[in-house]
Amino acid sequence: MFTQLLREIQIKQDSLLCIGLDVDVDKIPAHLQSMTNPALEFNRQIIEATHDLVCAYKPNLAFYEAMGEGGITTLRETLKFIPKSVLTIGDGKRGDIGNTAERYAKSLFEDFGFDSVTVNPYMGFDSVEPFLTNPEKGVFILALTSNSGSKDFQRLKVGIKPLYEKVVHTAKKWNVNQNIGIVFGATHPKELQRIRKIVPYMPILIPGIGKQGGDLKSAIRYGCDKHGQLAIINAGRSIIYASSGKDFADAARVEAKKMVEEMRTYAGQVSS
Amino acid sequence: MFTQLLREIQIKQDSLLCIGLDVDVDKIPAHLQSMTNPALEFNRQIIEATHDLVCAYKPNLAFYEAMGEGGITTLRETLKFIPKSVLTIGDGKRGDIGNTAERYAKSLFEDFGFDSVTVNPYMGFDSVEPFLTNPEKGVFILALTSNSGSKDFQRLKVGIKPLYEKVVHTAKKWNVNQNIGIVFGATHPKELQRIRKIVPYMPILIPGIGKQGGDLKSAIRYGCDKHGQLAIINAGRSIIYASSGKDFADAARVEAKKMVEEMRTYAGQVSS
Repeated sequence: MFTQLLREIQIKQDSLLCIGLDVDVDKIPAHLQSMTNPALEFNRQIIEATHDLVCAYKPNLAFYEAMGEGGITTLRETLKFIPKSVLTIGDGKRGDIGNTAERYAKSLFEDFGFDSVTVNPYMGFDSVEPFLTNPEKGVFILALTSNSGSKDFQRLKVGIKPLYEKVVHTAKKWNVNQNIGIVFGATHPKELQRIRKIVPYMPILIPGIGKQGGDLKSAIRYGCDKHGQLAIINAGRSIIYASSGKDFADAARVEAKKMVEEMRTYAGQVSS
Repeated sequence: MFTQLLREIQIKQDSLLCIGLDVDVDKIPAHLQSMTNPALEFNRQIIEATHDLVCAYKPNLAFYEAMGEGGITTLRETLKFIPKSVLTIGDGKRGDIGNTAERYAKSLFEDFGFDSVTVNPYMGFDSVEPFLTNPEKGVFILALTSNSGSKDFQRLKVGIKPLYEKVVHTAKKWNVNQNIGIVFGATHPKELQRIRKIVPYMPILIPGIGKQGGDLKSAIRYGCDKHGQLAIINAGRSIIYASSGKDFADAARVEAKKMVEEMRTYAGQVSS
């Protein structure tokens, strides 16, 4: 079961940190730009410098698709650098009718070999189902996202509860294979606290720390389960672009380490 | 403005038909399988045989992504076969936070050169905004989709109205550049009738005819504006796989022509 797998990896790595590998060609340090594949070399060095500090890496597919065919190859090759001891999350937020969702599931799980993916719930069960069949593969369903647009539909009241809460209840109901998690923005700490009580045993992928304004302490305090686990704290730009110089990988490690140590303190407080 | 462009193309082509180019390697006729790129050759022949009968082609990105890097090239090359007299719809149903949505918009509009795309509204305005900036490029926002899962969230009541209706009202409000349309499944004819009254001047992309059970007559009757336009009727499998033999392109033309002639009769009834 994916949830158990995540738990084991978080214990073994002693980390809740996920690094968002959202590689942006314009932000890659100058000294890499002359290489055959600067984005791949950038990722390789980031992974080499940080893999003992994380429970997961999350490449957002948009950044690779924006590079065309070469980007797809870069993503595939990047995944090969990630050791088996760490999970991969293919962040594509896909959602389409059944026969099409099957294609996306096949592409992400079989072709790329991601351990888990993010999906958009708007189209309902048959759009999510093809991702759920293998209990070893995880599916993170968008609930309340970290961006400002989360208020436009996700917070609308359905009866007395907001839509995102209905999504969480539904995701819980669908979770027969114990491989479903939810995506919940760190920018909504109070709501996160309430949601963790609804899904005490499900993984919660938490983006929005750092540049987007989310607070690490409340993300851990409210996002973890009672053992101080199952929250996956994503940080992207603040780590991978910590330096734009030749020391970018070392700087990423310093930043990641700082975050992990802070997390360990907070998670210890949760579980104690 | 995209809406005006669509109107002109529908008049010029005298067609509301959009062919879904959802090419499936397993369904490509045997005699093409030995070619260098069977999927591309399949698409080329389908386009050559049908381009005078359609207002748009809609490749669903999932089918191309499932083919890996080669699929991306196939999609790019396929788009080159589509004459300028016909619109292209990149059906990816993307949705992500602002800076990521920008990447998707860049990839689909600039890199691939799609005239329009489909997007998922769940993440709200900043996830849609990057697609809206060029008034010549169209954006179809998912409202009530054709699949069974549409009942899970889209039909939930937000106050006294279903969520999909709230999405339509919001899309209308966002439509300052007159380049927004909505996606509405042909499997919901009564709801389509009500929605067309809310958005009398917006394009409606209507999938779900044929294999999915939607009825052509009601899709036209309820989906068109008062001039018998701005409904885009998508048909995929029933046309492109009309025959699995050497005559597949001719068979696709026969099927497309039959649909277009039926549409013309119904659209004439709407606008008269």
